[in-house]
Amino acid sequence: MLPATLPDAVRAALLAPMVDQHCCGVRRDDTTRSGFEQLIGEGGTPAPPGTTHFDTPAGAAIRRWCAPVLGLEPHASPTVYLSRRAELGAGEVNRRLLRGAGVSAFLVDSGLDVPALLSPAEMGRLGSAAADEIVRLEQAEQDVAEAGLPAADYAGMLRDELAVRAARAAALKSVAAHHCGLGFDPSRPSRGSVIAAAGRRLADPKSRLDDPVLVRHLLWAAVDVARERGLPLQFHCGLSGWGVTGWGVSGWGVSGAAAGHLTDPALLTGFVRALAPLGVPVVLLNCYPYHRQAAHLAGVFPHVYVDAGPAVAHAAAGSGHVLRELLELVPFHKQMYGSGCHGAAELCFLAALNHRRGLARVLADRIDEGEWSPADAARIAHMIGSGNARRVYRL
Amino acid sequence: MLPATLPDAVRAALLAPMVDQHCCGVRRDDTTRSGFEQLIGEGGTPAPPGTTHFDTPAGAAIRRWCAPVLGLEPHASPTVYLSRRAELGAGEVNRRLLRGAGVSAFLVDSGLDVPALLSPAEMGRLGSAAADEIVRLEQAEQDVAEAGLPAADYAGMLRDELAVRAARAAALKSVAAHHCGLGFDPSRPSRGSVIAAAGRRLADPKSRLDDPVLVRHLLWAAVDVARERGLPLQFHCGLSGWGVTGWGVSGWGVSGAAAGHLTDPALLTGFVRALAPLGVPVVLLNCYPYHRQAAHLAGVFPHVYVDAGPAVAHAAAGSGHVLRELLELVPFHKQMYGSGCHGAAELCFLAALNHRRGLARVLADRIDEGEWSPADAARIAHMIGSGNARRVYRL
Amino acid sequence: MLPATLPDAVRAALLAPMVDQHCCGVRRDDTTRSGFEQLIGEGGTPAPPGTTHFDTPAGAAIRRWCAPVLGLEPHASPTVYLSRRAELGAGEVNRRLLRGAGVSAFLVDSGLDVPALLSPAEMGRLGSAAADEIVRLEQAEQDVAEAGLPAADYAGMLRDELAVRAARAAALKSVAAHHCGLGFDPSRPSRGSVIAAAGRRLADPKSRLDDPVLVRHLLWAAVDVARERGLPLQFHCGLSGWGVTGWGVSGWGVSGAAAGHLTDPALLTGFVRALAPLGVPVVLLNCYPYHRQAAHLAGVFPHVYVDAGPAVAHAAAGSGHVLRELLELVPFHKQMYGSGCHGAAELCFLAALNHRRGLARVLADRIDEGEWSPADAARIAHMIGSGNARRVYRL
Repeated sequence: MLPATLPDAVRAALLAPMVDQHCCGVRRDDTTRSGFEQLIGEGGTPAPPGTTHFDTPAGAAIRRWCAPVLGLEPHASPTVYLSRRAELGAGEVNRRLLRGAGVSAFLVDSGLDVPALLSPAEMGRLGSAAADEIVRLEQAEQDVAEAGLPAADYAGMLRDELAVRAARAAALKSVAAHHCGLGFDPSRPSRGSVIAAAGRRLADPKSRLDDPVLVRHLLWAAVDVARERGLPLQFHCGLSGWGVTGWGVSGWGVSGAAAGHLTDPALLTGFVRALAPLGVPVVLLNCYPYHRQAAHLAGVFPHVYVDAGPAVAHAAAGSGHVLRELLELVPFHKQMYGSGCHGAAELCFLAALNHRRGLARVLADRIDEGEWSPADAARIAHMIGSGNARRVYRL
Repeated sequence: MLPATLPDAVRAALLAPMVDQHCCGVRRDDTTRSGFEQLIGEGGTPAPPGTTHFDTPAGAAIRRWCAPVLGLEPHASPTVYLSRRAELGAGEVNRRLLRGAGVSAFLVDSGLDVPALLSPAEMGRLGSAAADEIVRLEQAEQDVAEAGLPAADYAGMLRDELAVRAARAAALKSVAAHHCGLGFDPSRPSRGSVIAAAGRRLADPKSRLDDPVLVRHLLWAAVDVARERGLPLQFHCGLSGWGVTGWGVSGWGVSGAAAGHLTDPALLTGFVRALAPLGVPVVLLNCYPYHRQAAHLAGVFPHVYVDAGPAVAHAAAGSGHVLRELLELVPFHKQMYGSGCHGAAELCFLAALNHRRGLARVLADRIDEGEWSPADAARIAHMIGSGNARRVYRL
Repeated sequence: MLPATLPDAVRAALLAPMVDQHCCGVRRDDTTRSGFEQLIGEGGTPAPPGTTHFDTPAGAAIRRWCAPVLGLEPHASPTVYLSRRAELGAGEVNRRLLRGAGVSAFLVDSGLDVPALLSPAEMGRLGSAAADEIVRLEQAEQDVAEAGLPAADYAGMLRDELAVRAARAAALKSVAAHHCGLGFDPSRPSRGSVIAAAGRRLADPKSRLDDPVLVRHLLWAAVDVARERGLPLQFHCGLSGWGVTGWGVSGWGVSGAAAGHLTDPALLTGFVRALAPLGVPVVLLNCYPYHRQAAHLAGVFPHVYVDAGPAVAHAAAGSGHVLRELLELVPFHKQMYGSGCHGAAELCFLAALNHRRGLARVLADRIDEGEWSPADAARIAHMIGSGNARRVYRL
């Protein structure tokens, strides 16, 4: 799996357990072929008639790399794979694949509110790893909005709710990119504008949060809490729609309001700049295909970090090049590993596998061309795999 | 031309005749050196004094790869190449190069209205291939606008005209990217707003269509026709200006109103989402350098397809990397081959050659690293080269 | 350093002295570790506690490639490197690194107004090269704004000031990307709107120029001067923030108003189009990660040129891929070498080194795959390294 010429110390650093600094839960239940296809496709939709989501880079990688984990030959057919998956049962499949990811700690976004997804604690147990929770801000806000309170109490209750959830969490996470895009006014909205907007929101609390005033208010409330508790603030960036809309969890890709270009992390520059004096780390998740912009922000701002997210699992063997682009500018102390996956444990496994393969290729090239010493390369693999996350999340 | 290690079945699949799912006609007449340079440059403009468009990736590739097709040594000088071209005559040159492209069917945008360009039937005849027509929506609209009718009849006549043209076509194609950019409001415009806009348009019918209301109306009228007839709707996306402005056919690059960033297919997300329930396939053409965004849309939406377009001919040997990026996310059943070329048969030949070379390199790598089986690789080459197009266009 | 298989003529062309068509001065004085770290980081800010800017691609490259220039072993530790740097003194270090860049002429933006930076003449003297000056438009405007004149005289004095500065310069340069972004209205602003805007500006002359009317006025005034004197107009494009904010020179990254996506050169399409008939060459500097857009503009418009800028130094070994992408579309007669560096002579050295390494790799690949003849490859290296710049700047 790793280049044969790689020095032992580098190989060991790459194979050491990693911190998965951002993922969602995988499903605990068995699934039909159609259900599984929706989990592994990018949009959470069925494949068109006459086609299959196994005919994607991730689908081919599942047949190649996950099949042996289930005791099959590489390149098993989809039918054979799914029949073996059913035979083993979701519990055993999840256990094998999550352990196979070689992760020592999962930070899990628990805000999807889908009972069929494993909880953070269950992810840890099945994966033989520690587990911590990430609070999804928009889910907290939705719960507050639906609580039936007057507009004047909205801000206070939201602050309290965030504080309560943050008390047991390792990070806060925003999916503002899916709600109104990242091009919002970076300033903290006025009290009056928040009360007015809350009034409109509470008149229709089941609707999707999309008022930029309330999205900004939520972010600034989160900044206050993050600052008090020393927590990083994660932002989902980049193209999305990965995942499990088939079970009611939808990315913006199919059902959301925002379009791809509004997820470019460069749009966050003003907000990031406003946070610079506050000491709140900002972690840019995923970012593909705007990962170069993210790497640049991480290079320019001392408090910005990045990961390559679920693009690594979905692009499979093609993801090595994505990592290569990220590594053009990102400081070694600013990149982290995060699978960003949810729904299928296969994606968690493939993200870890392809992160190691892709990074190994870059490290091997840098060593071969004399650019980095083997000791440097080992240190870089360690920083990216777990060292940076342990420092930033104080694990 | 193809990697020596490639298994026979993969090589055969790559070399099999392809469907060129989108091109324009090439010129039927002989040309001067200056005329030829304008055909092969990206902007359809002459090279600056003291320089030549042969000093481009495509120009060097013509000397390397097209020269032998005309019976010359590789790397022939521009003067030798053009003198041999004149000696053989445009008819024989077109015949050799179009046949050399190894295409079994050309889908030809016939809407450029330049008599010197070969018709779809002529493209097929010279290239020993089947040929079908693609209706360019904006040309149909222009003809309607210039017919001298009252504004109240505009919508009806446009619908009728599109229906007539669609009856003999394999696809409809929009170049809205060149007229107002792709960031338009995705909703169908109101009847009243269309009549008002048509009134303004018909007061100056020779002008270029750029009113977003009419561009949207045209698109929705096309969607209705496409739905009735089961035709795909193609969108030109990405940077353009390739081609033949020298003969009065202009891309946006030099003479158009829109700027490059407005051709990002991610801007089409809302429109694509609106079409999802209607069963009209959407084909994103070209897309460079936003091809990753296009691949993502093809992954997320069941009805979206992509090709890599004329960037493959123009980037020549450098295009392998563009295909590699496209293949990071695109489902194998969603990518098609389209040369997107017009004017010079050389570009048609180079697109096919470089598509095969670039894809061969990716397939060879995936086989070498154990990611895809040779059988998978052969199947993928077949799907991209012709299988997907035959299914989508019902050829 | 260069591939062993490279033909001698290509190697010689690559190693020949280059024209650095755009850089800023490097610091003349010795520096502390913290000061040096701020010079080599992207944002001009200190590294976060517990980290170091030596843990970046550029930092690792300094230890690898600059250490031997100072007489140290490759991969020297940061402490050893900085101690040797102090021992030699800034003058000797600058002399060794600037000479080591292998440059025959530096075009130096003298508009940073920081006395600690070497002047163009000093850059030339230390680097054994010719040197010419580039006039930074916004600095000239700032000086005019601060001169305490009435608004009615603003335009005239600005025109005179630009003419005086242009008389001794090789080019004019705009950093409009940092002041209001590149999405400005391309038309020349009306006289009335300029006088009104000048009135507001002169009421607070120490403020940063950010009124788009005045930015446009400045650009059109520069176009007039450039046209009279036959000078190119350079535009800083792409992500920035490289550099020396620690000494009061700030990019937009940390302190500016604009965000990254507003530096995409595609936004300049309208302005570039307006300049097409005027005969003023437009040079797009840096551009990363929008260099493909820049290459396309250079391919479409006869008067547009590009360089890859400081991304080559900062991405170090990773920059080969950036050059590869630029070379996908850029005509060989349109690309130039420009280090874009300032502050640390190390960056000047690394830009030249990595330009040669990266280009060598592409040339070697093209020769190996039979795409370019060795004679073509040598000619291309010469054009990019110095030939194009000598023609455009009439050196």
